[in-house]
Amino acid sequence: MDKKRLEALLRQVSQGSLSVRSAAERLAALETAKLETDKLEYARIDHHRPLRRGIPEVVLGEGKSPGQIQGIVEHLIERRAPVLVTRLEASVGETLAERHPIGRYDPLSRTYFARSAKTRRKPRPGLVIVSAGTADLPVAEEAAVTAEAFSLVPDRIYDVGVAGLHRLLEHLPRLRQAKVVIVVAGMEGALPSVVAGLVEAPVIGVPTSVGYGAALAGFTALMGMLSSCAEGLTVVNIDNGFGAACAARVILQR
Amino acid sequence: MDKKRLEALLRQVSQGSLSVRSAAERLAALETAKLETDKLEYARIDHHRPLRRGIPEVVLGEGKSPGQIQGIVEHLIERRAPVLVTRLEASVGETLAERHPIGRYDPLSRTYFARSAKTRRKPRPGLVIVSAGTADLPVAEEAAVTAEAFSLVPDRIYDVGVAGLHRLLEHLPRLRQAKVVIVVAGMEGALPSVVAGLVEAPVIGVPTSVGYGAALAGFTALMGMLSSCAEGLTVVNIDNGFGAACAARVILQR
Amino acid sequence: MDKKRLEALLRQVSQGSLSVRSAAERLAALETAKLETDKLEYARIDHHRPLRRGIPEVVLGEGKSPGQIQGIVEHLIERRAPVLVTRLEASVGETLAERHPIGRYDPLSRTYFARSAKTRRKPRPGLVIVSAGTADLPVAEEAAVTAEAFSLVPDRIYDVGVAGLHRLLEHLPRLRQAKVVIVVAGMEGALPSVVAGLVEAPVIGVPTSVGYGAALAGFTALMGMLSSCAEGLTVVNIDNGFGAACAARVILQR
Amino acid sequence: MDKKRLEALLRQVSQGSLSVRSAAERLAALETAKLETDKLEYARIDHHRPLRRGIPEVVLGEGKSPGQIQGIVEHLIERRAPVLVTRLEASVGETLAERHPIGRYDPLSRTYFARSAKTRRKPRPGLVIVSAGTADLPVAEEAAVTAEAFSLVPDRIYDVGVAGLHRLLEHLPRLRQAKVVIVVAGMEGALPSVVAGLVEAPVIGVPTSVGYGAALAGFTALMGMLSSCAEGLTVVNIDNGFGAACAARVILQR
Amino acid sequence: MDKKRLEALLRQVSQGSLSVRSAAERLAALETAKLETDKLEYARIDHHRPLRRGIPEVVLGEGKSPGQIQGIVEHLIERRAPVLVTRLEASVGETLAERHPIGRYDPLSRTYFARSAKTRRKPRPGLVIVSAGTADLPVAEEAAVTAEAFSLVPDRIYDVGVAGLHRLLEHLPRLRQAKVVIVVAGMEGALPSVVAGLVEAPVIGVPTSVGYGAALAGFTALMGMLSSCAEGLTVVNIDNGFGAACAARVILQR
Amino acid sequence: MDKKRLEALLRQVSQGSLSVRSAAERLAALETAKLETDKLEYARIDHHRPLRRGIPEVVLGEGKSPGQIQGIVEHLIERRAPVLVTRLEASVGETLAERHPIGRYDPLSRTYFARSAKTRRKPRPGLVIVSAGTADLPVAEEAAVTAEAFSLVPDRIYDVGVAGLHRLLEHLPRLRQAKVVIVVAGMEGALPSVVAGLVEAPVIGVPTSVGYGAALAGFTALMGMLSSCAEGLTVVNIDNGFGAACAARVILQR
Amino acid sequence: MDKKRLEALLRQVSQGSLSVRSAAERLAALETAKLETDKLEYARIDHHRPLRRGIPEVVLGEGKSPGQIQGIVEHLIERRAPVLVTRLEASVGETLAERHPIGRYDPLSRTYFARSAKTRRKPRPGLVIVSAGTADLPVAEEAAVTAEAFSLVPDRIYDVGVAGLHRLLEHLPRLRQAKVVIVVAGMEGALPSVVAGLVEAPVIGVPTSVGYGAALAGFTALMGMLSSCAEGLTVVNIDNGFGAACAARVILQR
Amino acid sequence: MDKKRLEALLRQVSQGSLSVRSAAERLAALETAKLETDKLEYARIDHHRPLRRGIPEVVLGEGKSPGQIQGIVEHLIERRAPVLVTRLEASVGETLAERHPIGRYDPLSRTYFARSAKTRRKPRPGLVIVSAGTADLPVAEEAAVTAEAFSLVPDRIYDVGVAGLHRLLEHLPRLRQAKVVIVVAGMEGALPSVVAGLVEAPVIGVPTSVGYGAALAGFTALMGMLSSCAEGLTVVNIDNGFGAACAARVILQR
Repeated sequence: MDKKRLEALLRQVSQGSLSVRSAAERLAALETAKLETDKLEYARIDHHRPLRRGIPEVVLGEGKSPGQIQGIVEHLIERRAPVLVTRLEASVGETLAERHPIGRYDPLSRTYFARSAKTRRKPRPGLVIVSAGTADLPVAEEAAVTAEAFSLVPDRIYDVGVAGLHRLLEHLPRLRQAKVVIVVAGMEGALPSVVAGLVEAPVIGVPTSVGYGAALAGFTALMGMLSSCAEGLTVVNIDNGFGAACAARVILQR
Repeated sequence: MDKKRLEALLRQVSQGSLSVRSAAERLAALETAKLETDKLEYARIDHHRPLRRGIPEVVLGEGKSPGQIQGIVEHLIERRAPVLVTRLEASVGETLAERHPIGRYDPLSRTYFARSAKTRRKPRPGLVIVSAGTADLPVAEEAAVTAEAFSLVPDRIYDVGVAGLHRLLEHLPRLRQAKVVIVVAGMEGALPSVVAGLVEAPVIGVPTSVGYGAALAGFTALMGMLSSCAEGLTVVNIDNGFGAACAARVILQR
Repeated sequence: MDKKRLEALLRQVSQGSLSVRSAAERLAALETAKLETDKLEYARIDHHRPLRRGIPEVVLGEGKSPGQIQGIVEHLIERRAPVLVTRLEASVGETLAERHPIGRYDPLSRTYFARSAKTRRKPRPGLVIVSAGTADLPVAEEAAVTAEAFSLVPDRIYDVGVAGLHRLLEHLPRLRQAKVVIVVAGMEGALPSVVAGLVEAPVIGVPTSVGYGAALAGFTALMGMLSSCAEGLTVVNIDNGFGAACAARVILQR
Repeated sequence: MDKKRLEALLRQVSQGSLSVRSAAERLAALETAKLETDKLEYARIDHHRPLRRGIPEVVLGEGKSPGQIQGIVEHLIERRAPVLVTRLEASVGETLAERHPIGRYDPLSRTYFARSAKTRRKPRPGLVIVSAGTADLPVAEEAAVTAEAFSLVPDRIYDVGVAGLHRLLEHLPRLRQAKVVIVVAGMEGALPSVVAGLVEAPVIGVPTSVGYGAALAGFTALMGMLSSCAEGLTVVNIDNGFGAACAARVILQR
Repeated sequence: MDKKRLEALLRQVSQGSLSVRSAAERLAALETAKLETDKLEYARIDHHRPLRRGIPEVVLGEGKSPGQIQGIVEHLIERRAPVLVTRLEASVGETLAERHPIGRYDPLSRTYFARSAKTRRKPRPGLVIVSAGTADLPVAEEAAVTAEAFSLVPDRIYDVGVAGLHRLLEHLPRLRQAKVVIVVAGMEGALPSVVAGLVEAPVIGVPTSVGYGAALAGFTALMGMLSSCAEGLTVVNIDNGFGAACAARVILQR
Repeated sequence: MDKKRLEALLRQVSQGSLSVRSAAERLAALETAKLETDKLEYARIDHHRPLRRGIPEVVLGEGKSPGQIQGIVEHLIERRAPVLVTRLEASVGETLAERHPIGRYDPLSRTYFARSAKTRRKPRPGLVIVSAGTADLPVAEEAAVTAEAFSLVPDRIYDVGVAGLHRLLEHLPRLRQAKVVIVVAGMEGALPSVVAGLVEAPVIGVPTSVGYGAALAGFTALMGMLSSCAEGLTVVNIDNGFGAACAARVILQR
Repeated sequence: MDKKRLEALLRQVSQGSLSVRSAAERLAALETAKLETDKLEYARIDHHRPLRRGIPEVVLGEGKSPGQIQGIVEHLIERRAPVLVTRLEASVGETLAERHPIGRYDPLSRTYFARSAKTRRKPRPGLVIVSAGTADLPVAEEAAVTAEAFSLVPDRIYDVGVAGLHRLLEHLPRLRQAKVVIVVAGMEGALPSVVAGLVEAPVIGVPTSVGYGAALAGFTALMGMLSSCAEGLTVVNIDNGFGAACAARVILQR
Repeated sequence: MDKKRLEALLRQVSQGSLSVRSAAERLAALETAKLETDKLEYARIDHHRPLRRGIPEVVLGEGKSPGQIQGIVEHLIERRAPVLVTRLEASVGETLAERHPIGRYDPLSRTYFARSAKTRRKPRPGLVIVSAGTADLPVAEEAAVTAEAFSLVPDRIYDVGVAGLHRLLEHLPRLRQAKVVIVVAGMEGALPSVVAGLVEAPVIGVPTSVGYGAALAGFTALMGMLSSCAEGLTVVNIDNGFGAACAARVILQR
């Protein structure tokens, strides 16, 4: 529910034109739209999220059936709301793109993104995305595509792992111009520490599940980033490129 | 080494007045000051960090002997550099404060902070620090004292755990004015998710080691914060109030 | 073995009409029915469980072969005993429903339930089931379908995660009327803490394996629920919607 | 804040005698009492909890300084509110009992409990507490003392581990009369499964940190209880006798 | 190498008819038969194991290619050595049984066993195998089939979990006649504790990977069995029915 | 309760001279003696255990107060029952030995053992105890002293770790005469595998908490022993020398 | 970039014929070749690695798409650089071998290796590779094939697990001639400790993921090797035969 | 036993002057010296280890009583064997140094080292020891002192963590002259990866238990080092400076 409607409603209560009880019921009723299939409401979609957090509707594809994803996307596209679906299997993503060609499926980042021209905003610079190895690309690109959906313009610096420092150091000027840096790394996850020691901007570490054995499906990288004494470094969940882009956005929008 | 001296030195190389080899040696020699005890250099102090990262010298008290801490603090105070010591046992902290009354030891946050009047900067508002329970206070205050050392002005909202939501909700207006929020919570660590769902600012979660059994010495809170789907939330290490304040600072300085 | 037969038998012993040894053998022989395939008895079915625990026969589908499941269900339906099969793969469940149309297979909760009209009991109100996200639905529905098999009438409040508190708060009146609340949540698993802080009824937390990385396949949610300081909250195994419904039933039957 | 005052306040808003903004401020102001030491408010005490959850104020002694505990207890005793302090070290507990002889410190359960005669309620029967070994007694007694503070009358069945089944079986009649059973067990934590198979009442398992090596400081017992297929069994945190008593209370008050 | 040949060889050394060096080489050469495929010797088969440990050749099917398994079995059957293959996929096992009909593939225990009539020994009684649930059967049967291959005669007591104690107690007389008991259980793994409290014979606990979530793929059962204070109980690896039968055999052969 | 009394009692029931109900009560009443302190019965001592399991009363000192230990020991010594206390702190053990000089406290194994001359049995040979390093001695000696309390005669082979194989191999003849071998080892815990490959007797592995870092307080040794493919090897809990001796006893008594 | 070009460039700077800034840009530009697909540079290949580490280009096949692998291999073969691809699925490896028959795919070690005759170097002896069981062969062969790609000549001693010590001891002379020993073992991972106790050369332990349950997918072996007190033993990641061969190479090249 | 005596003995066997059996007994008898206290032999000291592994006797102080340490050191000093004691508490170490002033106790590395002038060997250069932070010094110095006891001459480069790369890079020339590098690092443990990317020599990573929370007492650093893709890097146990020095020695002695 948007602010204006809320204030109007409270004013009605203060003016006596709305009973306390009715106000409470109306607040509940207006708030969210529900999708129903076979009597089970499976998702409450909040059209007003942009007002509250400044971020378009994002649907996590993982753990939802193709039918559920399709239903939510359709509902949003009909209402001309921009929509980003993440963690989307190729088969489902390609079907979505066929049915709703206003959007595009990207197999590397496993995302579908649709936006009508009207909702586009002025691009905002300042984000640099750094990644360690070839196998970290899908996560780095999930961050990059999400950032682009938020009208950011990520500068990508890829394949610069710590075991070959010279590769990273040659990009120092680009790094030092960043207002926020997302650093994506698997295995020992040391890259964010090194980068945070080189720049003055906030650094968001994204551990990836790349590596085997002692890499512990990303937990070694996660724990390594959290253990770092490099200042200005914070961390998101393993493989959570999306979350890193969200954090970058709220930092840059300040 | 500051920028001017670096440029001067490189200019000498380009003018032929300094050999490549000598330049390299000089770069190494100038960079850092070393403290030595019994022939073992135990710390390299970088007077130029403010230039590189904009943060005064901070000394982690944990894992250092009282003599080492005393040596570093003395070295910095002599050079009029501001210094913050964290994770400092009461006995060592009180001795420090007696010897160097320019600084103050705070037993709750376990910090010693010293700064000459000259190095003070204009306070910068916008940081809110939220904490869940009484037992989380030492970590919240480590963040708050560190933030103050960085010339930030933290607004504290304490003892507002998720099992009594009304306590948190009454502070909504203060929360919504924040430019950065640090949320400190132990046990299930749910508070940062709830806060991040209520504000538009970046939220930095600090899990604490408060709780027993299934709280896993802070790992349940840590994993909970990382697993959250609340957008704009990033996380630092368990009990790392200092790290959260560093991250808040680099975000606010943008 | 039912109580009457047991008492009769013990009376025979006390009257000398049955030897101690014979009594022991008879007790063993009468107690349970065994199903045999290829000489290996694979399941002892206890027709008298309702007497002992007040709960109809439930078969865990996981870890049993289709033939074993089919055998047990047939055995029970022949004896007109109500039967609930949980964790049932779609292919096996649909075959069961074709062969024994007295029951129904529900793909979302992955259950098959069959009951003859006679065994129906009067529905008992008071259970509310709350779930956090769309991906938690299968577990929430396992609880709901099980509860219905126990003649409870669950009131479902779904998709009300802690990162959007307003969704939950609008249902406060329904929540506060509950006599028992089951709360199903994955990721950080914070919802049961929040709900237990809002109601006076017993709350049963069900962590789900929803989430990735730091969600640790449900263990973060499990540990979070156990670490909560919200009073009146107890917990069952990850994804154990069935167990939560059993606990709700024994609480409500008091 | 109690219900009457809340309704009065909302009525004032609806009658125009209170502005929306003032109402919000007043709601926040009235809700809780705060204790302050050295400018840091360290605890918000909610005098109205009995209204909301029906449970007297309980203070977790662990993680609080003796001064903080003393302050909270004094505040409550002055207001004639009953107070229970748990996880209390002997030295602090004995000092409390000396200063406030209205209450008693119990070294086995490590609790201090104070209640004026007026606040006593009619005792409510139906709770049985079972424990496995001598070393589990402190946790079982934490549950028992807490239950007594809630006006329950626990029936104690102690030292009946699963490796000597006959000890448990001789108490079957007492067990079967229970309306709620709390079962406290360390090591392999099998006792709650066995008890839940013998009774029709809800069973609350409390794993303890008793045992060494593979007992994993209580996690083996915790995981064992959660893995059990015995119906009607739910679980609380390791060593959380207090939480089990809280859950028993909300079940019995229904 | 058998004892006689070893003594002969050492006698030759002591008589000077064989040099120290030649003796060492010969010892190495005679000891084992090697199977080679594409130049890589992939298994050293020790025909003389029966002499050393009294146990026929057993081949772990897991981790070996069908060709490797086939090669080893053929080699042994040609030499008329009895052979047991465990952890054998159905397709490979059935092919084996077709090619070498002297042996039989058992799909429940996933074993292939072949023995010529000559190598049969007199059956030895005294082993009882107990299992908790239907899903534990494959492991219980791996133990039983292995025991039969070792000429033991296991008495099977199946589906007697601790949540229904009466099922177990009715078999007390059979249990108390055992000279060794193998107890197979998943989930909380409490059955071996209970059995060891009822019998005077050595009890070998076999945890199984049956269960989900908190059952931790068998580790909860494993840790539970190890934590038990029941005397006379020792434990083998998760799902290791084979290992339990080996241990039973060396105990019974004494 | 001993067998004769049980048979007598059951005969009375069958003859009608005792009611079913009275028989049940009497069975319960006779079975165990209880010790009480301050109204809390803290231990049920079973004088009849020797009948049931053939093992004298053993008291685990860990987790019991000095007063509780003293009470139990006194109770048993008065009744002339042999008693072994394990995991006993030196101060408590020495006090016990002073008060009850019939027994002896051994500081290395941390045990107190008392037996009147009458209860001594004929020593039984066949047990060999092997240990890896000096730091494993306390656990090895807990096994040895316990074994001696059970009238076994352990042959000790100590300080024979796998990194110096020749030390072990020189004892091969003693090893090969064993009827049961207990092998105590920390760190990687490889010694039981090696020993089990060299002997035909049952081998009981006892992992110890010796080692640091990757030794994981004994879990690496425990998991290593469980993972071994050496046949005839079973395992007890970390540092559980007592449990290994119990298992050895039930094997040797066959 | 090779040394000569680097020195030339720095000389230009010192002679003033190249500006500081240009030098920095040129350094960055010359350093690496990039491969691009659809605008995303996915791999930076460093032709100069041999100069820096003395090791030919190695491509980790895992986590890369067939197209990416094919692109990198083609790029290198065109430039006549030797290339080794590890962790390569059979289908991809065989396609590579068909397209570039200069190289060979080995299904056991899952490697593709290609080298033109010119780049061959003189073989260097001194490496012995020991492995415990048949299932460890793929890892042992990954080490062996990698070593051969580095012009080493591995001496293979396979199938010599610690549960049958005599198999290992017969190879003592070959072991004692080694200059470096790689020891590959799964399950309890005890073999490297035993070998390191027998030889004077550096021993590199490679734990494998062979085993089930308590073998913890290789972590038991890894932790066991790290816990060993055998001197001269260091360890690489689970299943990392490649890394062991790299380490052997840098040791032997000294 | 030294080689000459062994050959002599075997020659006697081959000449018939010594029976096979006597030879075996003599071999066992001569091999080791035993220290006995109260009938329990607690350590077998092998005077001939230098012959077998080229490393003087080293005694791990941890887990041994002061008396045991004293006994072993005395035994060795009497025989003029050099001795190094590690992990030695200050009080014990200082007492040792007073009694045996031929050796010295070093409190930082917690070692006692004694060697008579005669046993000194020619120092061998080539080892560089790098450490990350001040708190890592005790482990780095354990490695350095051990190396010196082995007649190596370690070059120390300390306090060069990855969050301040320039500190490390200034020492590149010293690093590149190394024949072996030991790198000691806690927290995220990234330093060995970075160093191994810069040098051509073998790198031995030593994780330390420095750090808190997510540093997991050294396991994050350990797992990070094992996960690294830097070539030539192998790893030892957490805090195992001693083990790293042993490995460096066997590499350098080649």
